[in-house]
Amino acid sequence: MEQVKTKAYGTDGALLNRFNTLSRMDIERNTPKADEVLIDILYCGVCHSDLHQVRNDWGNTIYPCVPGHEIVGKVVETGTTVTKFKVGDVVGVGCMVDSCGSCPSCREGEENYCQGPVSWTATYNGYMKPDGSKYNTFGGYSTSIVVKESFVLRIPESLDIKAAAPILCAGVTTYSPLRHWNIQAGSTVGVVGIGGLGHMGVKIARAMGATVTAITTKKEKRDAALALGAHQVIVSTDAKAMKQHERTFDFILSTVPDEYDINPYVSLLKRDGAIVTVGLLAPYKGPLNNMEVAFQRRTVSGSLIGSIQETQEVLDFCAEHGIQPDVELIAMQNVNDAYDRLEKEDVRFRFVIDMESLKNETE
Amino acid sequence: MEQVKTKAYGTDGALLNRFNTLSRMDIERNTPKADEVLIDILYCGVCHSDLHQVRNDWGNTIYPCVPGHEIVGKVVETGTTVTKFKVGDVVGVGCMVDSCGSCPSCREGEENYCQGPVSWTATYNGYMKPDGSKYNTFGGYSTSIVVKESFVLRIPESLDIKAAAPILCAGVTTYSPLRHWNIQAGSTVGVVGIGGLGHMGVKIARAMGATVTAITTKKEKRDAALALGAHQVIVSTDAKAMKQHERTFDFILSTVPDEYDINPYVSLLKRDGAIVTVGLLAPYKGPLNNMEVAFQRRTVSGSLIGSIQETQEVLDFCAEHGIQPDVELIAMQNVNDAYDRLEKEDVRFRFVIDMESLKNETE
Repeated sequence: MEQVKTKAYGTDGALLNRFNTLSRMDIERNTPKADEVLIDILYCGVCHSDLHQVRNDWGNTIYPCVPGHEIVGKVVETGTTVTKFKVGDVVGVGCMVDSCGSCPSCREGEENYCQGPVSWTATYNGYMKPDGSKYNTFGGYSTSIVVKESFVLRIPESLDIKAAAPILCAGVTTYSPLRHWNIQAGSTVGVVGIGGLGHMGVKIARAMGATVTAITTKKEKRDAALALGAHQVIVSTDAKAMKQHERTFDFILSTVPDEYDINPYVSLLKRDGAIVTVGLLAPYKGPLNNMEVAFQRRTVSGSLIGSIQETQEVLDFCAEHGIQPDVELIAMQNVNDAYDRLEKEDVRFRFVIDMESLKNETE
Repeated sequence: MEQVKTKAYGTDGALLNRFNTLSRMDIERNTPKADEVLIDILYCGVCHSDLHQVRNDWGNTIYPCVPGHEIVGKVVETGTTVTKFKVGDVVGVGCMVDSCGSCPSCREGEENYCQGPVSWTATYNGYMKPDGSKYNTFGGYSTSIVVKESFVLRIPESLDIKAAAPILCAGVTTYSPLRHWNIQAGSTVGVVGIGGLGHMGVKIARAMGATVTAITTKKEKRDAALALGAHQVIVSTDAKAMKQHERTFDFILSTVPDEYDINPYVSLLKRDGAIVTVGLLAPYKGPLNNMEVAFQRRTVSGSLIGSIQETQEVLDFCAEHGIQPDVELIAMQNVNDAYDRLEKEDVRFRFVIDMESLKNETE
C-alpha cells in the first residue's frame, strides 16, 4: 500500500486552541485497499463542528487536524473487490468512514450509534480504529480521500453537485430524527436555530408534509426562514409569542450548537410531544424542569447525525423533492475568513469550498 | 344539595409551612348529586405527596388541607343517574375527581393530561373547578367522600381491601409509564428508588415479564428489593457497578421524589432507551448532558399518575397477577408519626390508614 502526497488545509495545533487557523499542508493518503475507492474531491461543506475541532473546543482534537465531512467528488480509482462504484461516479462522504460492524447498532444499520469499543470512525479526527489501533483520519479539506465503499454515498444525478455537500452532514442530521420520530403530513414541527442545520431541517420537514415553524432568537432571520419554507416564525425572545404557542408542537428539532436553556421550548410541546437536540453535544444551560416534562408526558431526546442508509435516503429525498442547501461557494484560501463569518452567523446558510482552488495552488 | 358534617384529619396551615401537622377537624361534604356516589371510606394510603402538600412544599397549598388520594371504601348512596355502581360495592378513588372532559386529552381518555383551563381536579387541594370556579377539595383522610361516578374505580374482589389503596396512586403512577412504553417479556427495566412507588414498580414490571433491576442508594434495601421480585440490585453509589451496567437497560423508571442528578442513570440506557421520572415534579439537580443523550438517541421523559382507564387496568392487573402493595396499617391518630417515619424512609413500603380509628373518635 503506497502513500501518496496530497494537498490539504489543516492546522498543526501549534497555537493556543482558539488561535489556531488553517493553512496549507501536505498529507499522505494510501492507495485504495481492495474495498476502498479513491475520490477526487470537488466540493466540501464547512460545518460548525470543523471550527470546534480545529480550535479543540471539545478537548479531543488530535493534531495535525484536517477538517471536512461534507464531501462531494468523483471516483477515480477503485479497489479490487469494489462493486458499488465505478470510475467516474459522483459520490459523497459524510461524517463516518468506518464502524465496528459487529455491535447491535452496526448489525441493525445504525452505525452512527456504534457501540464498538471506540464507536464509529469519524471522517476526520477519527483517531482510533474500531480494532483499537491509533489512526488519525484527515477530512475533506483536501484534493482527494480514500474511503471504504460501504461508507461512500451515491449522489443522485439531479442534485446540483455544487450545493449537495451539506446534505451529507446538515441534511442527514436533521432528516434522521424527523424520520425516526415519524414526521408526516399534519405534524406540527418547530425548528429551533436557523443556521446550517436548521435551514435543512425547515426544508426537509416541509417536504415531509409538516406544518413548520422556525424558532429563532434573531428577528432579522424572519424573512429568510419564510423563504426556506417555514409556515411561520417565532422569535424566541418574544415572551408573548412563546406563551401563545405553548402546547402546539408535536415535535421540535433543536439545532442550537451552544449551551442553552431547553425549558422554554419544552413548554411549546403538546402532550406526548418530543424535543430532539442535534446541535449541542454537551450539558444544557441549567436544569431541566421535570414538572413541565411530566405534566404532558413530553420527551427530551437527542440524535447524532444519521446512518449510512439514512444518508443515502436523504440524498435521494432531496433529489426527489427538489431540495438543495443554500450555499455560498468559497475558495480554500478563504476558509479562515469563512470561520470568522460562521462565528458571527454571517452565512446563508452553508459555506462550501470549491476544491478547484486548492488544486490550482502551486506546490 | 345538603351539607353533611364529616370527620377528617387536616391542617389549617396556621403554622409555618414545615411545622404544620395534622389534627382532627370537621369538614362539610355535600350529599350526592345525580352523577355522584357517597363512599364510606375504609382505608386511605399515605402518599409522599400528602406530606409535601400539608407542608406547602410546592407553594400551592390551599388551607384548610385534608390530604389523601388512595381511597378504598364502600358505596353507601348513589345519585339518581348513577349506573356504574350500587350500594355495597367496594370502590376506590385515586388522585383525580374531575377533569374538563372536552380537551383532546380528556376526549382520548387521558384525563391525567387534561389541557382544560385548570387541568384536572385533584382529589384534595383541587382548588379550582374546570369551569374556573374555586373549589377546595378534601381528600381521603376522612370518614366519607362524594365523587362523580366516572372517577370512581371498581376494586376487584380478589384484592385484599386492607392493602389495595396504594394501587390507586403508587400503582397507577408506575403502571402507566410501564404500559405506555410497552414493557413486556424480555424488556430490561431498572427501577430507581425503592419506596412507595418503586416497590410497586418492581412488582408490576416483573409481572409484565421484564427483567427487573432495583437501583437504590441504600445497600440495606438490597434484600427487600429482591424479595419484591427484583432480579438484581444496583447500589447507585457503587461507581464500579454503575459503570458495569452502562448501556444495559431498555427502560428506567425513576421514582426519586427529590432533586437528583439524572445523568448517571441516562448512561445506563441502551440505544433508544428511555428514562421516565414520576417522582420528582421539579427541576433536576444540575444540567442534563445531551452528549450522553444524543450519542445513543436516548430519551428523558416524565409521566404523571395515570388515566382513569389505566387506574382500573392496574387494579385488575394486580388482581390477576396476585400483586398487592406491602403496607403497614396505622390509626388516623398516628399519622404525624407516620409522616416523620416516611421522611426517614422508615416504611416498608406504604402506610395505610384504617379509617375505623377515625370513626371511633368521639365527637
